[in-house]
Amino acid sequence: MVGARPATDISASSAVNEKRLWQRHMAMAKLGGTLKGGVNRQALSPEDAAARKLLATWAKKRGFEVATDAIGNLFVRRPGTDAKARPILTGSHLDTQPTGGRFDGAYGVLAGFEVLEALADAKIATRRPIEVVAWMNEEGSRFQPGCVGSGVFAGSYDVAKMLKITDRAGVKVRDALAATLKAAPTPRRKGIGFAVDGYIEAHIEQGPRLEAVGHTIGVVTGIQGSRRFAVDVVGEESHAGTTPLRVRKDALKSAVAVVDALQKHMHDETDTVRFTVGRFETYPGSPNTVPGRVHFTIDFRHPDSAVLQRLGDGVDDVAKAHAGPCDVRVTGLSYVEPTVFAPQIMDLVRDTARRLALPNMDMPSGAGHDAMYMAKLCPAGMIFVPCARGVSHNEAESATPSDLAAGCRVLADSLVALANR
Amino acid sequence: MVGARPATDISASSAVNEKRLWQRHMAMAKLGGTLKGGVNRQALSPEDAAARKLLATWAKKRGFEVATDAIGNLFVRRPGTDAKARPILTGSHLDTQPTGGRFDGAYGVLAGFEVLEALADAKIATRRPIEVVAWMNEEGSRFQPGCVGSGVFAGSYDVAKMLKITDRAGVKVRDALAATLKAAPTPRRKGIGFAVDGYIEAHIEQGPRLEAVGHTIGVVTGIQGSRRFAVDVVGEESHAGTTPLRVRKDALKSAVAVVDALQKHMHDETDTVRFTVGRFETYPGSPNTVPGRVHFTIDFRHPDSAVLQRLGDGVDDVAKAHAGPCDVRVTGLSYVEPTVFAPQIMDLVRDTARRLALPNMDMPSGAGHDAMYMAKLCPAGMIFVPCARGVSHNEAESATPSDLAAGCRVLADSLVALANR
Repeated sequence: MVGARPATDISASSAVNEKRLWQRHMAMAKLGGTLKGGVNRQALSPEDAAARKLLATWAKKRGFEVATDAIGNLFVRRPGTDAKARPILTGSHLDTQPTGGRFDGAYGVLAGFEVLEALADAKIATRRPIEVVAWMNEEGSRFQPGCVGSGVFAGSYDVAKMLKITDRAGVKVRDALAATLKAAPTPRRKGIGFAVDGYIEAHIEQGPRLEAVGHTIGVVTGIQGSRRFAVDVVGEESHAGTTPLRVRKDALKSAVAVVDALQKHMHDETDTVRFTVGRFETYPGSPNTVPGRVHFTIDFRHPDSAVLQRLGDGVDDVAKAHAGPCDVRVTGLSYVEPTVFAPQIMDLVRDTARRLALPNMDMPSGAGHDAMYMAKLCPAGMIFVPCARGVSHNEAESATPSDLAAGCRVLADSLVALANR
Repeated sequence: MVGARPATDISASSAVNEKRLWQRHMAMAKLGGTLKGGVNRQALSPEDAAARKLLATWAKKRGFEVATDAIGNLFVRRPGTDAKARPILTGSHLDTQPTGGRFDGAYGVLAGFEVLEALADAKIATRRPIEVVAWMNEEGSRFQPGCVGSGVFAGSYDVAKMLKITDRAGVKVRDALAATLKAAPTPRRKGIGFAVDGYIEAHIEQGPRLEAVGHTIGVVTGIQGSRRFAVDVVGEESHAGTTPLRVRKDALKSAVAVVDALQKHMHDETDTVRFTVGRFETYPGSPNTVPGRVHFTIDFRHPDSAVLQRLGDGVDDVAKAHAGPCDVRVTGLSYVEPTVFAPQIMDLVRDTARRLALPNMDMPSGAGHDAMYMAKLCPAGMIFVPCARGVSHNEAESATPSDLAAGCRVLADSLVALANR
């Protein structure tokens, strides 16, 4: 297979150091590490500051440039040979869910950093600079919404507004960021956003498909669109012992019928539709009172814009048709169109994986990622690697050193190809 | 019709004063009266004490004897001509739900009291004493369980244990009772329970059946039995965007299927089965996380012991058969056998209603009542009158002066018949 590789990038992937990449993950996972082996490193927390400081320390040792922009995105830059060329960006995020894992986000940052180190080790120059970015607050668990750093970078969010967002304790992003930069000082990068020639993000799949078919590399075709709804079913409270079922307006019974009907409405033989009722609240919640009200949420996702529209638009009718004697109100909360990644990035990642003899498949991303926003700015794409049983947003999240290294090798050759374009 | 009435009780029912009975209700409803026209008069609260004091004041004005027993049951006694004869008891309760109505409980006490007044007005003597009782804490909302006063009276509950029960603020029944007796002092009645020759309780139906068929009097045949279950469905939390439906262990989806299957299992063409899922809680309750656990309750009631057993015993199998990939655990919380009222009391109430030309029907009680415990001690029964739309345990609870008076007339003649037996 080696003979098939073009001379320009053969050494980038072969210089990737699996052991070092794994050790970097283990060192990073100690910052916010939990007793159950997971990570609690929420955005702009002391743990996040420690993670930024560690990355910056590693970067400085290798002579890379480090800087933080006004919203707290952290950049590590390896210069190119053409001082005027726009950089290629790679990265992900260092923040985690409160009961998160060791790989969600951290992998994309550390794989990018490993590429820079591998290039430095192998003394490979690229025409364009390659920059690794740790986006601020991707998870959206401490501060909402998520993807604040990449959203601001891409111009989708206003930086002044985002700096005013508060966490549950009332702490503003602005103040948490100031504290973080004090604990992990770096030079400031002026302005927000800059011209980028391409973006590739490596990430664990957070789903079970790669593992199920035994493939190492997911060539991410896009990020499915999502629609969120709130459904309120309103009946009438009555006495559980005395009220005949015929005259009840049982909000729980109606809500159960509505959920059942929506599951049928969303049924999909290909198992591509994602339909989730994650919150379901019953009032007054007394065992001997017929419920007068139920509130539930719908999280519906699909990679195809037309399907997202058609099935989503049907929710209201289906709910109304199955609410029985109760009233039902469906409120649309959000509608995010699918992201389609650039064909040239998909082709590059797929070809690179093939050349490296890594079993791969095209697949959409079920979860949202910073790449969603970068796709608005430049040709963008993602590389997935398997995680055990697809478990993520969970302290039990797990991935193997060899899979992480495989994804990093694909990333390395792909970035070099982009950087020499 | 008058000519058809036997001479012995013609004057008891005809002496019932509809206007006075209504005014007593309105006066009582002011104690704990809410802005929405309901009543919040929980057991042994200052409002309950005020209600007891008002009843005692009325009783003393008429020369009736008043006494309170060790668990806080309040008795108003009109003596009979036979000093050794056991009394006939009637009554209900003065405590209400936190958002209760003006008639639930109060009606049974005030109708009984109206009978004593009517007898006094008409100078009708009875062989046995007739006593009106206001049972302590029927509702079970401040202190749990409910029916404490009648349960202790009947020997089903231990008085020492019941005195130690606390409300949510940690106040013991013992101390709340002492405060109540201080605010509404009466002579003490020694011991707990005494021999009773019969018991009839008047109550609003708390259901819509009498109103629906246009009948004024319900001859209560018994109180349906009840079984309570808790159901726990355990699946696995996963990412709503990435996890294919095929591999999910979605506790909400399974719980919805279980509830649907239980509704079918409990289906009953005669609409006699009462099946209610009143509490339904989903964890972690995050819109973009597949629920890992659902906890819900089942309240199942039926007047027939065999049906109660057969359908209730099927709950576990039905739940297990429909839980899909999730685990399900069904826990039986309580099992109360149906109460069957004494045929002679039912006959007496039915005959009396017929003689008074009041449209009537035999019907079971859906709700539990103090009569449940009295039926263990002596021949017992109940008289139901309609309430608007069957609404109860609700500030909107409503009944008409004429229906209340009609029930009181049936009660009056029935009590006199029992008292002269």
